[in-house]
Amino acid sequence: MEDLTQTPLPTFDDMLAAHDRIAPYIHRTPVLTSSYMNALTGSELFFKCENFQKAGAFKVRGATNAVFGLSEDAAAKGVATHSSGNHALSLSYAAGRRGIPCHVVMPRTAPEAKKAAVRGYGGIITECEPSTSSREAIFAGVQAKTGADFVHPYNDPRVIAGQATCSRELLEQVADLDAVIAPIGGGGMVSGCCLTLSTLAPRIEIYAAEPEQADDAYRSFKARRIIADDAPVTVADGLKVPLKENTWHFVSNHVTDILTASEQEIIDAMKLTWQRMKIVMEPSCAVPLATILKTPGNFRGKRVGVVITGGNVDLDNLPWIP
Amino acid sequence: MEDLTQTPLPTFDDMLAAHDRIAPYIHRTPVLTSSYMNALTGSELFFKCENFQKAGAFKVRGATNAVFGLSEDAAAKGVATHSSGNHALSLSYAAGRRGIPCHVVMPRTAPEAKKAAVRGYGGIITECEPSTSSREAIFAGVQAKTGADFVHPYNDPRVIAGQATCSRELLEQVADLDAVIAPIGGGGMVSGCCLTLSTLAPRIEIYAAEPEQADDAYRSFKARRIIADDAPVTVADGLKVPLKENTWHFVSNHVTDILTASEQEIIDAMKLTWQRMKIVMEPSCAVPLATILKTPGNFRGKRVGVVITGGNVDLDNLPWIP
Repeated sequence: MEDLTQTPLPTFDDMLAAHDRIAPYIHRTPVLTSSYMNALTGSELFFKCENFQKAGAFKVRGATNAVFGLSEDAAAKGVATHSSGNHALSLSYAAGRRGIPCHVVMPRTAPEAKKAAVRGYGGIITECEPSTSSREAIFAGVQAKTGADFVHPYNDPRVIAGQATCSRELLEQVADLDAVIAPIGGGGMVSGCCLTLSTLAPRIEIYAAEPEQADDAYRSFKARRIIADDAPVTVADGLKVPLKENTWHFVSNHVTDILTASEQEIIDAMKLTWQRMKIVMEPSCAVPLATILKTPGNFRGKRVGVVITGGNVDLDNLPWIP
Repeated sequence: MEDLTQTPLPTFDDMLAAHDRIAPYIHRTPVLTSSYMNALTGSELFFKCENFQKAGAFKVRGATNAVFGLSEDAAAKGVATHSSGNHALSLSYAAGRRGIPCHVVMPRTAPEAKKAAVRGYGGIITECEPSTSSREAIFAGVQAKTGADFVHPYNDPRVIAGQATCSRELLEQVADLDAVIAPIGGGGMVSGCCLTLSTLAPRIEIYAAEPEQADDAYRSFKARRIIADDAPVTVADGLKVPLKENTWHFVSNHVTDILTASEQEIIDAMKLTWQRMKIVMEPSCAVPLATILKTPGNFRGKRVGVVITGGNVDLDNLPWIP
């Protein structure tokens, strides 16, 4: 509960303020439909394409809200994080747009391509050993030296308020949705959906989709308490992190159900989406479609928003190619 | 000249009629932009995404115009073609929408995936040997037996009028274009651009982009007469066919220049587009960007429409993966 006191939960008004704040720096991403996918699932699916978002992922919404919400004095010291994924890219992008430094602590063993991508967006990398203890020590050192503001990838209320702008756009773009489904890792996107939809359209069902091999959110949901796994292994590499108290609040209060899919089901849904919808998206984004195909009864006859969360894929290592 | 008499050139009014005729069956495809690509090229690029088109390619415009322009009596006998690529898919799709048969003559050696795709859209395949003589004999037999209307992939005025609707949409979607660039194989798309732009916006430059290894249109343009190659080899497999008299008319009268790119330049531009724009597109679609990157001086400071012609790629055989 200490953390809740330190970081109060974001409100609907925080989401509205975030949307005004970030609008100049993000895309209003398109919603795509596919008659093939509709026929296949017996649903009407509306794909909100955050893979076309700035920096290639929805995470730029929350990162930009955090960066542009800082006071001048705080901003001058920069921002910092220890993600090696889309949050690092997004925070680097947002900091670059504001002209302030972004410090990213990454394991020295991270792929060179990921380091190059962060640097490409202007991020300043400090390397740590690939262990939690090293990461925490190095990160504390960076913060102490720079005074940079720590922007957590998902447990930060500014970040959740930013991610919540995605489903506000979706509601403006698609009328009469019955359900929304998004992948769940740490729960930032799903919490954002909960924040917005519970106020604007509380009758819309909110589903979260998770890999079977990293199903800590599913088990947390069933157990009614946060369960965190250590280093799960899944092709959906954006979904390995556990829920934290802020995201758990939204997930436990507003999510209809959490559905899971196997690795092969995720890969098949990913390839099918590339083939039929002609979009490049990450394995994580395929988990919702995989669960819809697995349990179509939840969605049959319904109008369903499906959040495509990002498109930063290593094109030299596609999971269906041996 | 006999052929010109048989198949008069399509007019601007034919394009307008085509657009009305096909609108219920095609997508008005989106135009995407990329600040990364703009910075890289020094131009403002507007990508007209026909990879998101029905059946995955612009060819559905011309095919649908041909199918829905038939009289009831002619339509009852169906349509026929001998493409094994996007035209076959598109004609099958259009015939299916009208509820008439589509006969496709394909070499028995064509990949099973291509045959399956044609059948998936309802096409009826008749196999021939992989030779021109066999194809022509078998095709003549199919036509004699069925009375089906032959829809040529690009030299048919109904097809050119249909393809011409693409640049009409582009003009409605993007103001003040300085140039349009599209890949050239048989010249159907480029002829469509010429047909529309020469009437609506004659000051817009029209560029065609072609693989160096299949540069028959380039050499035709320089020689001022049609030169056809026998079986060129290029990764841009949609661009191997030669110009014919109807498309030559438009290309020779309205195209500003034809630019070429090497195989490696095409593959690099394709991968870069997938990486940065998150779209799945065919190698052929990368030829325009490859030529812009190769000779940026033609385009610097200009607003350029780039036609992304299709997205039907074999995801198990990507040209940058060994």
